[in-house]
Amino acid sequence: MVQAMSLPRNEAGIKAALGILKQRFGDRLQTGQAVREQHGHTTTWIENQPPDAVVFPTSTQEVSEIIKTCAANGVPVIPYGTGTSLEGHVNAPAGGISVDVSQMNQILAVNAGDLDCIVQPGVTREDLNVHLRDQGLFFPIDPGANASLGGMAATRASGTNAVRYGTMKDNVIALEVVMADGEVIRTAQRAKKSSAGYDLTRLMVGSEGTLGLITEITLRLQGIPEAMSSARCSFETVDAACHAVMMTIQYGIPVARMELLDTMSVQAVNAYSKMDLPEAPLLLLEFHGSEASVAEQSAAFGEIAEECGGTGFEWTTNTEERNRLWKARHDYYWAALQFRPGATGFATDVCVPISRLAECVAGSNDMVAELDLTGMIVGHVGDGNFHTTLLVNMQDKAEIARAEDFVGRLNDLAISLDGTCTGEHGIGQGKRPYLQKELGPATRYMAAIKAALDPQGIMNPGKILTP
Amino acid sequence: MVQAMSLPRNEAGIKAALGILKQRFGDRLQTGQAVREQHGHTTTWIENQPPDAVVFPTSTQEVSEIIKTCAANGVPVIPYGTGTSLEGHVNAPAGGISVDVSQMNQILAVNAGDLDCIVQPGVTREDLNVHLRDQGLFFPIDPGANASLGGMAATRASGTNAVRYGTMKDNVIALEVVMADGEVIRTAQRAKKSSAGYDLTRLMVGSEGTLGLITEITLRLQGIPEAMSSARCSFETVDAACHAVMMTIQYGIPVARMELLDTMSVQAVNAYSKMDLPEAPLLLLEFHGSEASVAEQSAAFGEIAEECGGTGFEWTTNTEERNRLWKARHDYYWAALQFRPGATGFATDVCVPISRLAECVAGSNDMVAELDLTGMIVGHVGDGNFHTTLLVNMQDKAEIARAEDFVGRLNDLAISLDGTCTGEHGIGQGKRPYLQKELGPATRYMAAIKAALDPQGIMNPGKILTP
Repeated sequence: MVQAMSLPRNEAGIKAALGILKQRFGDRLQTGQAVREQHGHTTTWIENQPPDAVVFPTSTQEVSEIIKTCAANGVPVIPYGTGTSLEGHVNAPAGGISVDVSQMNQILAVNAGDLDCIVQPGVTREDLNVHLRDQGLFFPIDPGANASLGGMAATRASGTNAVRYGTMKDNVIALEVVMADGEVIRTAQRAKKSSAGYDLTRLMVGSEGTLGLITEITLRLQGIPEAMSSARCSFETVDAACHAVMMTIQYGIPVARMELLDTMSVQAVNAYSKMDLPEAPLLLLEFHGSEASVAEQSAAFGEIAEECGGTGFEWTTNTEERNRLWKARHDYYWAALQFRPGATGFATDVCVPISRLAECVAGSNDMVAELDLTGMIVGHVGDGNFHTTLLVNMQDKAEIARAEDFVGRLNDLAISLDGTCTGEHGIGQGKRPYLQKELGPATRYMAAIKAALDPQGIMNPGKILTP
Repeated sequence: MVQAMSLPRNEAGIKAALGILKQRFGDRLQTGQAVREQHGHTTTWIENQPPDAVVFPTSTQEVSEIIKTCAANGVPVIPYGTGTSLEGHVNAPAGGISVDVSQMNQILAVNAGDLDCIVQPGVTREDLNVHLRDQGLFFPIDPGANASLGGMAATRASGTNAVRYGTMKDNVIALEVVMADGEVIRTAQRAKKSSAGYDLTRLMVGSEGTLGLITEITLRLQGIPEAMSSARCSFETVDAACHAVMMTIQYGIPVARMELLDTMSVQAVNAYSKMDLPEAPLLLLEFHGSEASVAEQSAAFGEIAEECGGTGFEWTTNTEERNRLWKARHDYYWAALQFRPGATGFATDVCVPISRLAECVAGSNDMVAELDLTGMIVGHVGDGNFHTTLLVNMQDKAEIARAEDFVGRLNDLAISLDGTCTGEHGIGQGKRPYLQKELGPATRYMAAIKAALDPQGIMNPGKILTP
């Protein structure tokens, strides 16, 4: 494990708040070690820092009461959705109360005529999409994990089809938030656009629970497309694949998903899924639209692929065949883990302008080799966003140190290419030094905003900003 | 004229700052009455509150020097683009220095491969589009006026094709901003998406110069579509037209523009432009895509229009014919002014969920009649956004009072329908009371952010928040 910084604990305050909350919430406040550890960070190599207790509110009013109690006693509040974040967002470095919103899981309204809905923060994206299906609607953001929508808003999540539908920043219309003093605000009305004052919605999206706790989310929805097509094509080099990506975007083909697997990823998938894909960089695509339009889009991409030296181009609208073409992507995570049995997989996330993508991917592969690591790449390349999955032997301290070194170097490279240290995973604990490197002077004003909205620093301390 | 609130002047500070800036900027600091009045509010019925001087910087460094001088002397700074804002954004209620960025008009970079560009704030949208045309690119946001891109970012502008391409919030990738203490920050790198810390980009977009002065803007661009088609259709009622709008959005037709003119607007255009459109609500549409796709979109809308009782449906891809179909919209502003000779036209702006649009438009028309006013409606109805243009006899104080009453009532109605008091014009001075009504408790946290980033309150005072 990689150590996470600890912060000073307010023992007296924590004790007092626990007493009050225990009386108020009874069995809905839990302090057992297992539940506490489960609510610390569990997904990557960052050490687990459990909270002192976990409370399960069922309403905004209850969240407000909890935060007021914590504010009165100077106790940290750590918002918790499903715990699938990857940079230590739910750790409790100063102890405190984890507020698990999983019982706030109601879909409050679906306004089909406006293509929007209002949900509580514990609703997961899969639950929402099951609920919407009968109405011909869907919520497009897909970060992979079946995350809660509150957590997705808080971390500005995106994923495979952000290239077409945007990220959480583009799909949250309004929020209800309990602020650090326990007051409840709405950041916007339900109108599709607004110029009414500071954009508190976008300030809260991506604030990782450090400015308030999201208790209600108004989301944009999409109509389920009449048709979808999937396509697959291999390329001789990452450079050629990235060139095809760039041309696809430039030609305005409204591609819904566009994923890159590098050669090692393809090798891993071939081994795991008994496939015989050419051992070369692979692009997978998905198109949404009318029957005619997805055919036109697929064919247009085929021409671009050919121009870029692509081979084995296939496309289909048949659901079974679509799944076959995308199997490499669906199986990727498990294939990567199997590629080095006994190792643990860690995905690190950067995003660069598309014109710099090939350079950044090549740099990542070079650094993996130089540092004698095992690592492969999968990317949401339509956005210039990719993840290097490192397969690390967690018994080998020297290897862990080299892996940490790699993460630092990759982030430095991405920043030097006018990119960001995180396209979608967020800062949490893990990326704080890189945020400083990336935005330097701007972080001073982020800190001023944090101090203004949370003067005691009780909301998810130790995340985003270096104390 | 409608009086705007005055704020206390810091005479000593203004005198001191003027002395320093005059020495530093020479003829680029102007204090003549004409130029000062031209830099106060000139576009609607809000009174003109000129600044004490206008300075014309040519670089970020100079803007930083100006703001440091103003900060040291406690003097207001009023950012100025082209002065086309409509709610008193550029007025100087406490005096101070207007910073006119029109000489910062360089297009610094066009990254065609990434579909982005970097511009100084004085570049206008038309200048940018002329520059981009040869590269097959365009910047889609079109608020009507040939506004500066700095001003458009500062007011979160949008306009006719926001329904497809979004607003400035969706099309600004990153900003360089001179903060209230004169420090220069970048809010983000050039990557297409990021989860790196608080979204200062979106906080600055729409902050109307009250948190800092924008000195550089990284914008998303679009490829010029292969084909465009335009369509026109009349409807018996606003309700039927709005129903067609809703179905078009729900069916996922990626309409690029969708404008509504109400019956009186059509009458005005018929009279002004010698047209013979049916005197009934009119929808105008534009579609972007491939030849096949715009044909498919136009036909699909035609079916929806027929289902909603639309008549006189026409569509075309021919440029001349497209201009003919859209002539009613292009001539609207001048037609409205001519509809009541001698009167002055004022557009007020609200935005509601599309399902409430017909109700809000009907409410607006009823209130215009009740208050014995002359007013007509044009709207970016794909977003639920519309403007009521009042034609007011500015010699008649009672009529002005009734017009003010109308604006208040319309905003109350929009807010009661889960809408906003401004879809795109911004708050400025004119809409401050409605922002309070709309977002109530949230405005306290907006004020906290303002105080944190601009503790002296020198950045564009008297705008957005009620002091």
